[in-house]
Amino acid sequence: MRDVRIKKYLKKMTYSYAFGLNPTLELVRAKPTRVIKVLFKNQANRYKEAEQIRFLCQQNNINYEFNNRLIDKIAAKENTYTVGIFEKYEDELEPSADHVVLVNPSDFGNLGTIVRSMSAFDFKDLALIRPAADIFDPKVISTTTGALFKIRFKYFPSFDQYADQFEFHHCFLFKLDGKSTLKSTKFKPPFALVFGQETGGLGSDFDKFGTTVKIQQTSDTDSLNLAISASIAMYKATSI
Amino acid sequence: MRDVRIKKYLKKMTYSYAFGLNPTLELVRAKPTRVIKVLFKNQANRYKEAEQIRFLCQQNNINYEFNNRLIDKIAAKENTYTVGIFEKYEDELEPSADHVVLVNPSDFGNLGTIVRSMSAFDFKDLALIRPAADIFDPKVISTTTGALFKIRFKYFPSFDQYADQFEFHHCFLFKLDGKSTLKSTKFKPPFALVFGQETGGLGSDFDKFGTTVKIQQTSDTDSLNLAISASIAMYKATSI
Repeated sequence: MRDVRIKKYLKKMTYSYAFGLNPTLELVRAKPTRVIKVLFKNQANRYKEAEQIRFLCQQNNINYEFNNRLIDKIAAKENTYTVGIFEKYEDELEPSADHVVLVNPSDFGNLGTIVRSMSAFDFKDLALIRPAADIFDPKVISTTTGALFKIRFKYFPSFDQYADQFEFHHCFLFKLDGKSTLKSTKFKPPFALVFGQETGGLGSDFDKFGTTVKIQQTSDTDSLNLAISASIAMYKATSI
Repeated sequence: MRDVRIKKYLKKMTYSYAFGLNPTLELVRAKPTRVIKVLFKNQANRYKEAEQIRFLCQQNNINYEFNNRLIDKIAAKENTYTVGIFEKYEDELEPSADHVVLVNPSDFGNLGTIVRSMSAFDFKDLALIRPAADIFDPKVISTTTGALFKIRFKYFPSFDQYADQFEFHHCFLFKLDGKSTLKSTKFKPPFALVFGQETGGLGSDFDKFGTTVKIQQTSDTDSLNLAISASIAMYKATSI
């Protein structure tokens, strides 16, 4: 077992926390070699997931302990019964798979919800263009309900670098003033669904990278929430 | 001007707050007779929306004042420059329009995001089956970015009462095990898109009310977030 000083999460730490039964179960199932330790409260024993987690811990030589005090020290919510402590890691994206690309996402909730939708629609590869929210923040992990551990993700310093590395991906750039409608767009793999930040969206400097697409909506409205736009696009791109 | 004691929001109060420039602008635009007063901080003057709000206040004999102290007392976020104080109200749903029906929604963020998507996809009528989150909670209003004031909504004590009142609406009941796929579903007006609560969804006792529909997704996943499911359904139902 590797030893870490357990304290409230900070972005600069080399490890993070999965709070809750489902996120912890997905963590030990998908990334067992990254798990440092699992913490339980007694109340976790009411749920079958706790037994599954302990079974997987035993199979993978992962330490676990019952420690209410430590959980209360690091968890934001009172009813957190399980915490998976794990080393942060990096992935490489799969070059032949379809990608989701988020340019400068800043909201933890949106990022987590998008990862959850990716898992539902079988997208496994997420590119994050910096500056971008910290995907290892426990708030993101909770919102994904554990789906974070089923996907691959990678941070890129700029969109150019992403586009250089995956030059054969056709980019669909989602914009309020996109030239194609989502309804009429045909998605031929491998493709990338690209979304801008919550407030500003994608600037016109992105247009050269591919096809701009708009999700049809009433004109007198504020735009859709980012997680909603991304999820509708994923639904449409996979519902052929 | 009606006088109210201005304090932090509580569900039992007969009035509520729209925090932020856009929500306040939508409030004074769509519901001027409900507005009790508008509060500004000096920083609001940097934005053209503040001027539009004051213009609408003058046109509608709505009082406004600059009062940093009062805003700090009631707002959750430090950078709130504008607050619209308004009397709560009730709507009747339009019988000939398509509806969105949420059975026991509990999460403020989901409720607000769904209202925002309704506005984007031109759904104007929302039925809420109790117990349900308080749609006048300022957290909901902020998440709608003001779209709340553009739609009609009504609480019902039970789904039966909703279904009795709108017996000619065809109900599409969204469930993980729905019989039809969203892709193959034809939406003929007037219809109602019906969604269950965040954790449990709709029970089998709802099946008799109409057509059960599933949004196709990978089987090994947790279900989609409620706001995502509802928004995808609205997109599909209007994208004919």
